[in-house]
Amino acid sequence: MMTIADLKNWFSKHRSEIKEEYFRFLRFASISADPAYRDRCEHCAQWLAEFMRQGGLQTELISTPGLPLVYAEDLSAGPQTPTLLLYGHYDVQPIDPAELWISPPFEPTERNGSVYARGAVDDKGQILYAIFAVLCWKKMGRSLPVNVKFCIEGEEESHSTGLFQMLEILGKKMRADYLLVVDFDQFDRDMPAVSLGGRGLVSLEVTLIGSHTDLHSGLYGGVAYNPNRALVELLAKLWDAEGRVQVPGFYDDVVDVPEKERSMFACRYGKEDYAKACGIEAFGGEKGRTLHEANCFRPTLELNGISGGYTGAGMKTVIPAAAQAKISCRLVPHQNPETIGRSIAQFLRQNAVPGMKIEVVQHEGDSAFRGERTSKLTQAIAKASSEVAGVECRYILSGASIPIVPELVKATGAQMVGMGYGLIDDEIHAPNEHFDMHRFEQGFLTVGRALALL
Amino acid sequence: MMTIADLKNWFSKHRSEIKEEYFRFLRFASISADPAYRDRCEHCAQWLAEFMRQGGLQTELISTPGLPLVYAEDLSAGPQTPTLLLYGHYDVQPIDPAELWISPPFEPTERNGSVYARGAVDDKGQILYAIFAVLCWKKMGRSLPVNVKFCIEGEEESHSTGLFQMLEILGKKMRADYLLVVDFDQFDRDMPAVSLGGRGLVSLEVTLIGSHTDLHSGLYGGVAYNPNRALVELLAKLWDAEGRVQVPGFYDDVVDVPEKERSMFACRYGKEDYAKACGIEAFGGEKGRTLHEANCFRPTLELNGISGGYTGAGMKTVIPAAAQAKISCRLVPHQNPETIGRSIAQFLRQNAVPGMKIEVVQHEGDSAFRGERTSKLTQAIAKASSEVAGVECRYILSGASIPIVPELVKATGAQMVGMGYGLIDDEIHAPNEHFDMHRFEQGFLTVGRALALL
Repeated sequence: MMTIADLKNWFSKHRSEIKEEYFRFLRFASISADPAYRDRCEHCAQWLAEFMRQGGLQTELISTPGLPLVYAEDLSAGPQTPTLLLYGHYDVQPIDPAELWISPPFEPTERNGSVYARGAVDDKGQILYAIFAVLCWKKMGRSLPVNVKFCIEGEEESHSTGLFQMLEILGKKMRADYLLVVDFDQFDRDMPAVSLGGRGLVSLEVTLIGSHTDLHSGLYGGVAYNPNRALVELLAKLWDAEGRVQVPGFYDDVVDVPEKERSMFACRYGKEDYAKACGIEAFGGEKGRTLHEANCFRPTLELNGISGGYTGAGMKTVIPAAAQAKISCRLVPHQNPETIGRSIAQFLRQNAVPGMKIEVVQHEGDSAFRGERTSKLTQAIAKASSEVAGVECRYILSGASIPIVPELVKATGAQMVGMGYGLIDDEIHAPNEHFDMHRFEQGFLTVGRALALL
Repeated sequence: MMTIADLKNWFSKHRSEIKEEYFRFLRFASISADPAYRDRCEHCAQWLAEFMRQGGLQTELISTPGLPLVYAEDLSAGPQTPTLLLYGHYDVQPIDPAELWISPPFEPTERNGSVYARGAVDDKGQILYAIFAVLCWKKMGRSLPVNVKFCIEGEEESHSTGLFQMLEILGKKMRADYLLVVDFDQFDRDMPAVSLGGRGLVSLEVTLIGSHTDLHSGLYGGVAYNPNRALVELLAKLWDAEGRVQVPGFYDDVVDVPEKERSMFACRYGKEDYAKACGIEAFGGEKGRTLHEANCFRPTLELNGISGGYTGAGMKTVIPAAAQAKISCRLVPHQNPETIGRSIAQFLRQNAVPGMKIEVVQHEGDSAFRGERTSKLTQAIAKASSEVAGVECRYILSGASIPIVPELVKATGAQMVGMGYGLIDDEIHAPNEHFDMHRFEQGFLTVGRALALL
């Protein structure tokens, strides 16, 4: 049997080698959203596949209509034992605003015990400790107690386009009893967590067009309806004074989760912690809902971007030809992303100023997903992480989305569980993303130990 | 006496020389708003001063705290005759969006009989025909019937900062009976106009700050109040459903001009013409006001720019740290720009979401101005332009602002009149600004002939 002590011992012996590989992984600028980085994404995938192959896993670099997928397996446990599929991604978010990075995003740099780099946590750091945990069993000459499969894609940050299209073909190959999604947070620095779900997502872009070109605000002021004004008036109608989204049908399929069920999940979101960590002093959920409820059990509608007219330094007195907004919703179980998107599009069209041209683009959406608290993998991760931390882990739900997860569950027939050692102030998706080797090790220990408990 | 025929004859003989100088003037990228163009503004001023000096005018290049002023005079008519001050500017608007220019903005290019270049109309084309009109009298050996002064500044497009600060010192030097502001439009292509006023201006920038950095819209969605949402909700409160500005006191000093007085000014703004020329199909004035009234006799509040979050291609699911808007108002007589600006700032602060940090910057404002319909210069320009066009000119008011004009009137003691041969679809302040030599000549003829009528 593999104990925490065995794993600690191995990690400690191989610490510098582990860190070297980690830094190597971080140096690839594998930004999937920007086609200009395509070759760097491919190099990253090639490196990762080679690393896993050399670790003794049966590895394939699988081409997709998008970026390649790294698939690896060790089925030596045999068909009588369960199969665990581990999911993660080697791609990262864009780096803008680039000027706010203290050290270059693709040159991992240690400061105050933390490793700063894009992807340090999300998801290179996290998937790499999981890989090391599996490799460690093999390197120590132990038989893996379950069959292990890895699905590490390159487009999680840009809607998993390639993997989505390959699921029908790959579903059989990746068939598993359990799916461990290694892309989540712990509860707080001293408290591990098992994640049993995330929200869905649907997004839209809306453009209001008032004239062929930008207009002089004196010559046309009082005459032309300003698209910026039309846009703020339109978008402001999306919520009432209580913060409830006004799109008809938006809440129709939302199940009001009773307090008793909600309380089974721990809440990371105390107002004060948020304010402290991020400077937030205004809170945005529906009135009468707790932050925990608003973040995990209720859908949101956010304006991710608004723009129109002159936005440089100083003033330019124009009436812009057009104004735009990017809108996305986080969805909860039972909400259908396509239906919600269509309702929002219809609301925008119906409420726009008459005469103003309106264009709405709806992007593909994803459903929310949930794991089973009683599943064997849930219990194994819970026990392993509690042992690692020396305190009982918490069960949590994430407010975030991993679009591929609900589809991966469907395609592989597996029960999902999420784990991770991210923290709310790691600045993932923002400048100066960072992780630390202590949490890297905790992740490694948790995965390594959970294998023994399955 | 100088007749239209004399002037036409001279223009026709010197047409190619005039065009050469016009193109030379247009090649200077004299963008005053951008400090990077300072040297090009200075070169432009030096060239202009030299050109006027060689034309026989007593010329000075006057340093200001901002960009230099070109001052020129011919006082040979003597102290018993009236003095006419001509005002214009050699600076131009920025060129963005740069990619929409069909030919380079500072390489004047003729297409379909029009000259395309930034400043082709505003105001290089216009002030240059006025200069040629004065020089023509001298070159033909005629004595100028009035004393003539030119004040040509380099910062009209960036709030006339330098000239404003020099007015106290220069007021005496520029003292005049009449002020001819050569920076306006004609009524339409076949109909000249005398402009008897413009609107004032006040502008502000507002920023809402929700957190230290951009946040992940899943992890923080439902928790953080999105500054984009706070901004659209705040800005939407600026108008009621009738299009009336909701800032307390905004209309307090606005005099309701009776229809009889309004009808003395011609109205260029038929809905259909606007729609045709610019693609406008939604109209923005207060309900119950005609377009003419809304454009010339009522103040406006415009959102010149809004921005917040991710505005590039595709989606990025952030809750931005901050969102901004640039706001400006066109003001009518009796409205005090500073008071109006303060009221707007107060309205924004009072209506922002509690807890959301708000920063408001108020820029210096300018008053509206009016000329006298019965003044001798008004009548001279009216008669001259009517002779040139062969139809009775119209009297109009502009919806635009020329910040320095009300101050110039005060400092010089002159009565103002505005003239110009701009047209609504010349794309001033926009890509592909253009003018044509026919209108250039009409301007030249009007100024040249008006001198004889003063």
